[in-house]
Order: sequence, then structure tokens, then C-alpha cells
Amino acid sequence: MATGVKRSQGRVGVAGLGTVGASLIGFLTERPLFSPTGKPVTVTGVSARTRGRARPVDISKLAWFDDPVALAASPDNDLFVELIGGAEGPARLAVETALRLGKPVVTANKALIATHGAALATLAEAHHAPLLFEAAVMGGAPAVKMLREAMVGDEVDLVAGILNGTCNYILTEMEASGREFAQVLAEAQRLGYAEADPTVDVGGFDAGHKITILAALAFGCAPTFAAAEVEGIGRIELLDIRLAKDLGYRVKLVATAERTGTDVSVRVHPALVPLDHPLARTAGALNALFIQGRRIGRIFVQGPGAGGGPTAAAVAADIADVLTGAARPVFQAPASTLVPFTPVDTSHVHGRYYLRLLVRDEPGVIAAVSETLAGAGVSIDSFLQKPVEGAGGVPIVLTTHAVIESVLSEAVRRMAALPALLEPPRLIQIPRI
Amino acid sequence: MATGVKRSQGRVGVAGLGTVGASLIGFLTERPLFSPTGKPVTVTGVSARTRGRARPVDISKLAWFDDPVALAASPDNDLFVELIGGAEGPARLAVETALRLGKPVVTANKALIATHGAALATLAEAHHAPLLFEAAVMGGAPAVKMLREAMVGDEVDLVAGILNGTCNYILTEMEASGREFAQVLAEAQRLGYAEADPTVDVGGFDAGHKITILAALAFGCAPTFAAAEVEGIGRIELLDIRLAKDLGYRVKLVATAERTGTDVSVRVHPALVPLDHPLARTAGALNALFIQGRRIGRIFVQGPGAGGGPTAAAVAADIADVLTGAARPVFQAPASTLVPFTPVDTSHVHGRYYLRLLVRDEPGVIAAVSETLAGAGVSIDSFLQKPVEGAGGVPIVLTTHAVIESVLSEAVRRMAALPALLEPPRLIQIPRI
Repeated sequence: MATGVKRSQGRVGVAGLGTVGASLIGFLTERPLFSPTGKPVTVTGVSARTRGRARPVDISKLAWFDDPVALAASPDNDLFVELIGGAEGPARLAVETALRLGKPVVTANKALIATHGAALATLAEAHHAPLLFEAAVMGGAPAVKMLREAMVGDEVDLVAGILNGTCNYILTEMEASGREFAQVLAEAQRLGYAEADPTVDVGGFDAGHKITILAALAFGCAPTFAAAEVEGIGRIELLDIRLAKDLGYRVKLVATAERTGTDVSVRVHPALVPLDHPLARTAGALNALFIQGRRIGRIFVQGPGAGGGPTAAAVAADIADVLTGAARPVFQAPASTLVPFTPVDTSHVHGRYYLRLLVRDEPGVIAAVSETLAGAGVSIDSFLQKPVEGAGGVPIVLTTHAVIESVLSEAVRRMAALPALLEPPRLIQIPRI
Repeated sequence: MATGVKRSQGRVGVAGLGTVGASLIGFLTERPLFSPTGKPVTVTGVSARTRGRARPVDISKLAWFDDPVALAASPDNDLFVELIGGAEGPARLAVETALRLGKPVVTANKALIATHGAALATLAEAHHAPLLFEAAVMGGAPAVKMLREAMVGDEVDLVAGILNGTCNYILTEMEASGREFAQVLAEAQRLGYAEADPTVDVGGFDAGHKITILAALAFGCAPTFAAAEVEGIGRIELLDIRLAKDLGYRVKLVATAERTGTDVSVRVHPALVPLDHPLARTAGALNALFIQGRRIGRIFVQGPGAGGGPTAAAVAADIADVLTGAARPVFQAPASTLVPFTPVDTSHVHGRYYLRLLVRDEPGVIAAVSETLAGAGVSIDSFLQKPVEGAGGVPIVLTTHAVIESVLSEAVRRMAALPALLEPPRLIQIPRI
């Protein structure tokens, strides 16, 4: 990494004019940012799918580009803001084009950075162009800046948080209103809190992209989304939310990135979090994050995870950062040294679990379940059998002591063969966070 | 502010070798920081009061300076770290000396920045030398960076938090153990959690310095400690902690900085915080902060507020920041534009209050109290009269609806003259945070 970076004079090209892009243009007009030379930042050109669409900001005086790649290449701007989205296609091509020209890039594109971050960092550093993406994670809460800059004097052990507002809203609503996942999702879609195709959010992929980026920053490795283990909230039933609460927990979609020796494990999964834990108290569309450093200890940050205003403010902060001329590696360590993280090996993961079974109400069932677990060497921490109206059987729920994940999976596989079981066992992690 | 700053090659002089200084030298040895050219940061010279004192790090190979000002002036280092403390004397002189030479300065000195920050910013910007002070506020939690950099695309309305770990520890312990202030303070001193002279902490001055710095960053004004209104926790009694809890609140030492129009008010005072508020859940030596921006909404950050490790890690992060060559104003806006904030005008402060009286157990007292308040136009929200053993009278506690502070103070002055009152009324704010 060279000592200098290409300086921007604050002539900005914006590709993508959705909520975030429109907010950004509004912000920069209402309350300009200034470059260190005192010049106000101005948007000089824009690109979007449809030129004529009604927008809350006036773009008639800005240069229009049908092709974002042409905007990225245009000498009329010296800072390229990418708000198109998607790991491939025009977003990727436009970002690569700008970086190859040594033009600083600010993006909110989590899929792009989580998938191609290392290659883009190599390109950025080779051409002395900053590549910033604060808006990709936790909206206006500066999770990226905290890991990249504030933790640079420390060693991070663990990053854990709630990174998808849609999932957190759905889980919060399921508990509050006593409705099942599908009903709450449908309502969230009606209210605009969830996309028409909700897969990216409820499947855990959005949170997976975000934790992949945070892991790369925390541990100085290449963002490797393919190595992240991702499970969404689609299988969570109201019954689990209720039983978990009886046991003193709340069900949350938790994203974790952990370093153990030289291994980095990155996971997104539903998890039982103790009711008095700050992540359990993170309700609705809020996001929250713990960063655990060896020297600093635990820092907790919470804020609105998305939305046009917070996200556009994060883009604006990145633009201001570019204007300072700061030269630093994209992911804490120089791009040439970044090593991918490898998929989680469940024979090494050691943790506690919630296990929920639905069984026939007949003698000997509890004994059969207990024996299967004991035979596999799984030790039970708490046990709850509770008749639930309309459940079509008797739910048995138990929590385990710490156990190797692959050992428990094997025991659960054996248990699934018991004739008294009315449906496959449900497992939810109880992570140490 | 010019576009360039003086670059450091990472040859660091450290003045002050207490816990933080020793930790910093240890950190930089164990896990070096690297400049963008790939050179490791090295400590080249040190200064402290006593050379021969036993220290956890070996300083025998470092150049020794009896005088920190001589270290600040030495060409052997190109980045000066000030960990001496105090608003005047050698700390101030050394920092001024370094800045006049265009040498970047990193300091943990809250009193210095809160008192002379604007003059030092002028000096720093005139000589193109960065002046960074992350370690002055909230230890390893990047409160300074968040306000200076992450909120630059937003407008901050309110900053509110718990910024003194000693006070928070004492208040937490009073509630947990049922002991009075003096006993818990004595224990904290024995355990090393409080200084032999605890005035700076328990008098609210330390929190006052910190919120003054945060206000300057949040609102782009000159840090003006003299204009901050500061009240400590020395008058808080166990009785108030217990009565507040009965009413659903916890007593905390809260620091707030608020902008109303062009006015900036900065205050530190004991406050009643609802039990389910994140600040009420901030226990022991933790610090916590809310930042409220118009676009971003509310961001909450919590972490260990002090200690050698977190503070030294914050200093190391600032050193890394200097090495990036970033050029930005010290307090968000150029030093030449910084306006001091003015003392709080209580005839404009509008808020709710907790009022506790100790009265003789005789008829007509409640009527007299209510009439005095009603006569002044103060409206009562809740009222609690509760016999407390050993209180030597009957405590009456009430909370008001929102009222102008100067109006309430006048009512309380009149009430103090009532013959049934056994001691002066106690007022504690219930801030909107």
C-alpha cells in the first residue's frame, strides 16, 4: 500500500437513485460537506434505471448517464458513489472501472463487498483509490469505522450482533402479537418493511453479507461469504418463541464472527439469547453489535440498521472521509496479505443448544429421548414438558450443556428415528455472546 | 485548514508513564502498528516524573527526558503522545511546543482539551499538525471518532450519557449494597476505583470535561468547560436511590449536551432515568452514550470507560489515524469558526423533576407543600409519602410535570421556609433522554 491516495475535490457521481441515493442528494444540497480546501461537495452526475421517474429531489441540472459504468469512467466526477446493489453486473463493473482509474469509491453494496471485497481491495490499493462501505452495515451506526479504525490498536476475538432489521422486526412482532412467521411476514411486506421477495432478508443472506464484511475488518482477512454458515428465520415457530421465553430466552437472528487460534468462523443463525442480554433487548428494526477486544473489552453499539436517512448519512460520512486524504488498507491489513476464511467445521464448534421435540403423549417417551442423548454423551441442562393447546402432541423442550455440535447432530439424527416423534427435532443454538 | 498535514513516520515520544503510558509501550511492542509505508511504529523517547521507578515495561533502551517539553521539541520523535494530565503546566506547554513545530499530537488529557481545546485547535491547524484525543472520553469506545467522523453527514441534536465510571460504580454499589455514599466511596478508594482526592470524579468535573469535548465535536463549537453546569453525586443519599426506584427510576450521573436553535447547553447532574432505559442498565464502571442525529436517529454505544488497556488502545488507534495522513479540522469545523457555548440559562430549561422533602409528621404539611407548588404554577405528576425507618421525619417525594427550571427553583426556595420542613428540599432532574 503506497503512502498517498488519490485526492478528491468533491465532485461526486451517484449511481442508483433509490431511497438512499435521493436522500444523499438531498442531504448534500441542504447541508453541504466541505473538502479540506473549503470547496463544497457537489453531485455532478447521476445514473439510474429510469430517467423520468418522479423523485423527491431535482436531478434535472445533473449530468445524466444511462450507463453507470460510463458515469464511473467520466472525468466530470472524481468520487464515485455506487448505490445500485448486487454482487455482479453493473454495480461490480462500475466500481471496478472507477477503481482502475484511481477514483475513490463509496458504496453501500454489502453483497458486492462480501463476495468480491478482496479483489476490489487489491484493485483499490494498486490504484491508490480509497474504497469505503460504511453504509453496507448497520446504516448510520459506524460499525465499519469502529472495526477498521478504533480497534486497530487491539486484537478482536468476537463480533456478534443483530444485523438484519427485517428479521428482527418479524421476530419481535411474532412475540408481541402471537402470530406465526408467515402472517407477520405478509404484514411486513404490506407495510414496506420487507421486500416482495424476502429471501435475502429472512434467509439470513443479508446478515451473512454484513457479518462477512465485519469479520474481514475485525480479523484482517478476505471477506469470504461462501464460507459463512447461514440459516434464516423461516423455520422459527411461535411455539419456539414461547417455550424459549419460559426458559428465560428470546429468539433472535444472531450473526457471529469469531477467531479461535488462526481459524475464523462466521455464522448467521437463530439463537436463544438471555432475556436480560442487550441483544435480547434490541427490538423491532434496530440493529446492534458487540465487539470484543482483548485490550478494550466489550463495546456495544446499537442503532437503526437501515432506512434512507441513516444509510445516506453513512455514505456522506464516507465521502467526508475520502476528502481527508486518509491512506489505509481497505480491510485493516494490506490486500496482498488477506487470507480467506474457511467454512465452519462443526466438529470443532462447542456450544449449548435448545432442542424441541413434539412427541406422542405415551409412556416411555421421555426415557427414550434421555437415553438417546445420554448414549451420545450429551448432557441436559434444563428440561421442560408443557402441554400446548393445538400443538397436536406434547412439546418437550430441553437445553443442553456445552457439547460438540457434530456430536449433538448425530444424537438428533438418531432421535429422529424414534417412533414417538411426531416431527423432526428442532435445534436452536444458545451462543456464548 | 490546509489540504495537507505533516506526516509522521511513526517515531513516537511518550510523556507520562502511568498505567496508560506503560500499557501503550507494551502494546506497541507486542503487536506493532505499521505506517502506510510498512514501517513499524516505535517509541523513541519517554518522559515521566521519576526515572528509576519500577514499571511493567522496559524503558532502559528509550531516550529519557526529564522535561516533557524537551521531549515534545526533540527531533528524535515525529509524533508526541501526552499522558501527563492537567489543564495547565507541563502538559499544556509540551502539547503547545509539539504543535508549534508542526508535530502531530495524541493526548488522553480531557481537562486540557475541555479548557484550551479551541486555542490548541487553532495552533494545530495553523501548523498542519493533527491533534487527536480519542482516549480522553470513554476509554476504548470511539465516542470522539463517532461524533467527529460518523456524524459529519448528519446534524446532532443531543448527546447524553454516563461518562464517569467512578460515579457510576459508587451509585451502582449504593443501590446494590444499601450503603451510603461515604462508605462506598471509602471502599472504592481502598480498591483503587477512586482517587485519594475524589473531587474530580465525584464532583462531576471529569464527566464535565468529557461532555464539553463531545459537545464541541457534536455542534462544531469551541469546548468551553467554564460554561458547563456541573453537579456531582456527593449529595445523593441512599434514601433518594430507594425512593426513585419505587417510582420506577434509577439515579445516575448523566452528562448532556443539547442544541436548541443556536444555543448549546452542556450539563452534568444526577438524574432519574427510567429503569428500562439503556442508561439505567449501564452498571458499575461502564460508560454509555446516546447520540441523536436528525437523519441517523439514535445511536447508543457502551463500553469500559477507563482503565490502562482500553485507554492505551484508544491512544494506539489515534496514532494509527495520524499515520493515515488524514487532514480534518480538530472539532468538525475549522478552528477559526468555533464559537464558545454560553452558560445554561435556567429560565429556558424546561423539564421534569423529582422533589424530596423530609417533613414533620403533623397535619397540614402536604397541603402546605401542594399549595406552594400550585401557587408557583408547578404541576405534580406523582406523589409518594412513605414512612422510612430512621429517617427522622416523613419523606415526601413527588415528581413534577414539565416546568421551567427557574420557576421550580423559586417554588422550592419558598417551600424551604415552611416550618414543617426538617431539611432543605432535594431536587433531581428527570431529563428527556
